Amino acid sequence: MANTLLRYVPILTWARDYDRAAFGNDMIAALIVTIMLIPQSLAYALLAGLPPEAGLYASIVPIMLYTVFGTSRALAVGPVAVVSLMTAAALGNIVEQGTAGYAVAALSLAGLSGAMLLGLGLLRLGFLANFLSHPVISGFITASGLIIAASQLKHVFGIEAEGHNLLELTLSLVAHLPELNLPTAIIGISATAFLFWVRKGLKPTLRAIGVGAKAADVATKAGPVAAVVATTVVVWYWGLAGHGVQIVGTVPQSLPPFTLPSFSPVLLQQLLLPAFLISVIGFVESISVAQTLAAKKRQRVDPNQELIGLGAANLGAAFTGGFPVTGGFSRSVVNFDAGAQTPAAGAFTAIGLAIAAVGLTPLIYFLPKATLAATIIVAVLSLVDFSILRRSWAYARADFMAVLVTILVTLSVGVEAGVSAGVILSILVHLYVSSRPHIAEVGLVPGTEHFRNIHRHKVQTDPRILTLRLDESLYFANARFLEDVILARLAHDELIEHVILQCSAINEIDLSALETLEAINNRLREMDVKLHLSEVKGPVMDRLQHGHFLDDLSGEVFLTQYEAACRAGLKPQV
Amino acid sequence: MANTLLRYVPILTWARDYDRAAFGNDMIAALIVTIMLIPQSLAYALLAGLPPEAGLYASIVPIMLYTVFGTSRALAVGPVAVVSLMTAAALGNIVEQGTAGYAVAALSLAGLSGAMLLGLGLLRLGFLANFLSHPVISGFITASGLIIAASQLKHVFGIEAEGHNLLELTLSLVAHLPELNLPTAIIGISATAFLFWVRKGLKPTLRAIGVGAKAADVATKAGPVAAVVATTVVVWYWGLAGHGVQIVGTVPQSLPPFTLPSFSPVLLQQLLLPAFLISVIGFVESISVAQTLAAKKRQRVDPNQELIGLGAANLGAAFTGGFPVTGGFSRSVVNFDAGAQTPAAGAFTAIGLAIAAVGLTPLIYFLPKATLAATIIVAVLSLVDFSILRRSWAYARADFMAVLVTILVTLSVGVEAGVSAGVILSILVHLYVSSRPHIAEVGLVPGTEHFRNIHRHKVQTDPRILTLRLDESLYFANARFLEDVILARLAHDELIEHVILQCSAINEIDLSALETLEAINNRLREMDVKLHLSEVKGPVMDRLQHGHFLDDLSGEVFLTQYEAACRAGLKPQV
Repeated sequence: MANTLLRYVPILTWARDYDRAAFGNDMIAALIVTIMLIPQSLAYALLAGLPPEAGLYASIVPIMLYTVFGTSRALAVGPVAVVSLMTAAALGNIVEQGTAGYAVAALSLAGLSGAMLLGLGLLRLGFLANFLSHPVISGFITASGLIIAASQLKHVFGIEAEGHNLLELTLSLVAHLPELNLPTAIIGISATAFLFWVRKGLKPTLRAIGVGAKAADVATKAGPVAAVVATTVVVWYWGLAGHGVQIVGTVPQSLPPFTLPSFSPVLLQQLLLPAFLISVIGFVESISVAQTLAAKKRQRVDPNQELIGLGAANLGAAFTGGFPVTGGFSRSVVNFDAGAQTPAAGAFTAIGLAIAAVGLTPLIYFLPKATLAATIIVAVLSLVDFSILRRSWAYARADFMAVLVTILVTLSVGVEAGVSAGVILSILVHLYVSSRPHIAEVGLVPGTEHFRNIHRHKVQTDPRILTLRLDESLYFANARFLEDVILARLAHDELIEHVILQCSAINEIDLSALETLEAINNRLREMDVKLHLSEVKGPVMDRLQHGHFLDDLSGEVFLTQYEAACRAGLKPQV
Repeated sequence: MANTLLRYVPILTWARDYDRAAFGNDMIAALIVTIMLIPQSLAYALLAGLPPEAGLYASIVPIMLYTVFGTSRALAVGPVAVVSLMTAAALGNIVEQGTAGYAVAALSLAGLSGAMLLGLGLLRLGFLANFLSHPVISGFITASGLIIAASQLKHVFGIEAEGHNLLELTLSLVAHLPELNLPTAIIGISATAFLFWVRKGLKPTLRAIGVGAKAADVATKAGPVAAVVATTVVVWYWGLAGHGVQIVGTVPQSLPPFTLPSFSPVLLQQLLLPAFLISVIGFVESISVAQTLAAKKRQRVDPNQELIGLGAANLGAAFTGGFPVTGGFSRSVVNFDAGAQTPAAGAFTAIGLAIAAVGLTPLIYFLPKATLAATIIVAVLSLVDFSILRRSWAYARADFMAVLVTILVTLSVGVEAGVSAGVILSILVHLYVSSRPHIAEVGLVPGTEHFRNIHRHKVQTDPRILTLRLDESLYFANARFLEDVILARLAHDELIEHVILQCSAINEIDLSALETLEAINNRLREMDVKLHLSEVKGPVMDRLQHGHFLDDLSGEVFLTQYEAACRAGLKPQV
C-alpha cells in the first residue's frame, strides 16, 4: 500500500531528503528558467492561437502537478513549439481563432490529452510511444519547425496569412505581402536578426573581449528578454501601436483562473485523434529529454510514471486556463545546467511565473507581437535538421522512405497527417521486411561441426539433404514464405529426401506458423521427404509440445544441426 | 521474352504435352464436377442475392480464363459460399436486392476484385495475404458458415428475414416465423434432413448392403442432384407453386451474355474495401486448396501467378453476367479425386455448364428455392468448426484472442468488420509482443565457453559485468525497451562497470535502433560504464559500419561472448 503510494506519487520519495543545499540550487535554477520562460510562454500561446496569458497559465499549475507526480529531476514542463503548433492545427479545423469557443476547445484538448496520458500510464501502455521511430520523429520535428517558422512570418511583416501546411502558408504570405506594415517589419526583422546574432555571434564576441564563459552563457540566454524590453520601449516611446504595429495589449493581472473545458461529445470526438497524436508526440519529446538528463547523473525516469506526471499536468492545464503542455527540450537543459537538483525547482519556477502573471503583465502592454514571432522563429529553426535524410539514405532505404514521407506529408498536408503517415509507413515496412525473412541454405564447414550459408562459404552438402536456416521468428506473416521456399526448392529437385530446418534463430512460433509447419510436414510426407528440426530453443520446444506436431513429424528433432545432418546420411569429409 | 510469356500464360507450358490419356482423364473429372456444380452454382447465386442464371454464368467464362492463366492443375474456380455471402453483405449496404442496379453492382464488385487481384499479382504482392493468419481465417470461416446457414433458413421456412449478422438474422427469423408456409417448410426440412443423411449415413448403408466403395462415393456426391430432381417433381406434380412455394421460375436459355459493369466513381469507392477483402479472402482460400493438391503430386503453384489467374477469372465474371468467384475447396477436391490431370478439365466443366445453361434451364422451372437453401446449409455447416477456439487457447492466449474477436465481431457486426478486426488485432498483438522482446541476463557455464540465462542455469557472474542477450531483432518498436532495461539495471547497481550485449539472435538493426544504441552508449559513458558487443552477425556488422557508432563505442566488439567477458575481467573458474 505504502509502496504503491510511493510509486504513484514520487514527490513522497525525494521530499523526505530535501535540504537547504538542494533548496539553494533549485532556487537559482528556477530564477533563470523563469526569466527564460516569460517570453517563451507568451510566444507559444500566440503560436497556439490563444491570448498571451494562456501561455503563462499553462506554465503554472501544470508545472506544480508535474513536481508531485513526475520522476525526472530536471524536466521543465510547459507549452512547447511543436505541441502548440499541433494545438493550433487541431483547433483551427473546428472553431475560429479568437472566439471564446476556441479557448474552451483548447481546454478540452488539454483535458482529453491529459486523460489519455494518465490512462496510458495507469495501464502501463507507455510502450505504444515506441512505434514512433527516431527517423519519423526527426523528420516530423524538422518539417514542423519549417511550418512554425512560416506561420510566424505574418507577425514579423504585420500582414494576414493562413494555412496549416507550408504550401498554403507560403501562398497566403505572398498574396498578402503588399499589405506589409513597415514599422512592424522593421521591428520584426531587426528582432529576428538580433536574436540570430545573440545565438551565434554573441558568445564568441563576449569571450573575445574577456568576459567569462559563465557570464557569456547567461548573456546569451537573456537575449530574448533584451529584445522584449527594447522593442516594447520603442513601440511605447514612438507610439507605434497607432501606426499599425500589433501589440500584446491588456493582459489580465491574475493568478490562473479556474476554468471548465467543454464536455460536448461532438467536440470531444473531433478532438480524439489530435489529442492522441499530441499526447504521443509530447510524451516522446518529454521522455527523451528526461532520460538524457537522468542518465547524466545515473538517475532513472520511469516511462509509465512520466505518463502519469504529464497526464496530471495536462489535466491541470485544462482546469486553469491553459492548453496542452509537455516537457520542453531547451528549458529542461537550461534547468539542468543551472543546477536544478529536484523537481522542486519546477515548483519555484511556477511561483516565479505566478508573480509575473500578477505583477508584470502591465509592463508588456506595448510588447509587439513581431518580437514574440521572432523568438519563435529563432527557436524553431534550430530544430530544422535535414541531415536525417542523408543519414537514413546511407543507412537503409526503408528508414529513408519513412523520413521522406513524414516530411513531405507534414509539409504538404499538415502535422497530423504527417506523423500518422510516418508511423503507419514504418509499421508497414517492418511487417513487409519480417514477412520475407532471410532464409539461408547451409552446409557443413569441412573439418568442423559448424554449418554456414552455401553461397558465402565453401561447405559440404549432400544432394539428398536440404538444410535451411531461418533467421527470424516464425509467425503468421512469414510462415507461408518458408512454405513457398521449401516447395519451390523441392519441385525443382527430385533427389531431396530430407529437409532439415535449423531453428537456432527462431525465438517464437505462433499458432499460424505451427499450422504451416504441419502443412509442410504433410506435404513433404506426400512426396516421401522427411522433415527434421534441429537446434530448437527451449521455450519454442515447450510450445511445440502442446499440439500433435511433434508426434506427426515425419522426421526427428535433433539437438545439433551436425547430428541431424549425419543421421540423414551426410558423410563428413575428413 | 518467350520466358516472360510462358510465365504469365502457363497454358503455353502444359498444352504442348497434352495427349489423349490426359484428355480422357480430364473429361471424366469434368463430367463429375459439372453434375456437382449445377445445383451449387444456382444455390450460391441465391446466397449472393442474384438470379440463379448468374451462378451458371459465373462458372463458365471465369473457369476458362483460369485455365489459361492459372498454375494449379486441379483447382475448380466458381462461386463459393463465403465469397457469395461477402458479396451479398457488400451489395446489401448499397443497393436493394432484386433491382437491376444490384446485378450491375455485383459485376462492378467482380471487376474491381479482379483488377485488384491482377494488380497484386503483377506487382508480386501476394505476400499481403499472409497477414490473414490461420487462426483468424478459421474463426472467420466458422462464423461465416453460421451466418450463411442462418440466412438460408428463411427459404427453408418460406418466410421473409433480413440481416447481415447473426443477431439481426435470428431476431428477424423469429419475428416472421408465424408467416411460415407449410408446404415450403415440409420440402425444406425434408431436403435438409435428406442431404445430412446422404452426407453422414448413405455411404455406410450402401457399403453394408454390398455396394463398392467407388459407387458409394459417387452416390453420395449425386445426393444434391437427387434432392433437386425429387423436390422439383413434387412441386410440379402437386402444383405447389400455387400454394406459396417459392420456385426458381424462368431462367433464360442462353450462353453467358456480354455485360458491362458500372464505372460510377461513387459506387466503385463504396465497393473498394469490400472488393479488397473479397480478393484477399478468396485468394487465401484458393491458394490453400491449390497448394494442398499440388503437393500431393510434387507439383507447384506460383502464388503471384495464381493472383493473375484469379484476377482474370473475376474480370471475366464482370463482363459475362457473373459475380465474384474464387477456387472452391470441395469442388477442387472432387476434381482432383476424379482424376483431373490438367487445367483443361476446368475448360470441359465450363463447356458442360454452358450446355446446361442453354439446354437444361427449362427443367428447373419448378425447382423450389427451399431445396437450394438446404444444399447451402448442409455444405456450410461442414465449415463450422469451433475446435480452433480450444486449440488456440491451449497454444497461446494471443492466438486465442485473435480467433475469439474475429468470431464475435463477424457474428455480431458482419463479415467485413469481422475479418478486418481479426487482421488488425493479430498485427497489433505481433507488434506488442515484438516490442517487448525476451532479454536474458546470462552468465558463464563453469568449465565451458557457453553463456546461459542466469535464472535457468547455475552460472558464474561478476558484479562488475552485466551481460544481456536480446532474443529478437532490434527495431524502432523494441529498442527503447532495451534502453529501459539497461538503465533500470544500472540505476540499482552501482558496481557495474561493463555492459556486454550478446547479439547472436539479432538479425537486423534499423536506424532507430542504431540511434538508441548510440544513446545507450552515451548514457553509459556518462556513468563511466563501458558498452561492448559480442557475436554480431555479418550483415548486422555491415550496417553498423555505416555510421559513427562503432567509432564512438566506449567498449569493443568481440567475436565471442567468452572473449568479451574475459577481457572485461571475468576469471573463469576451473
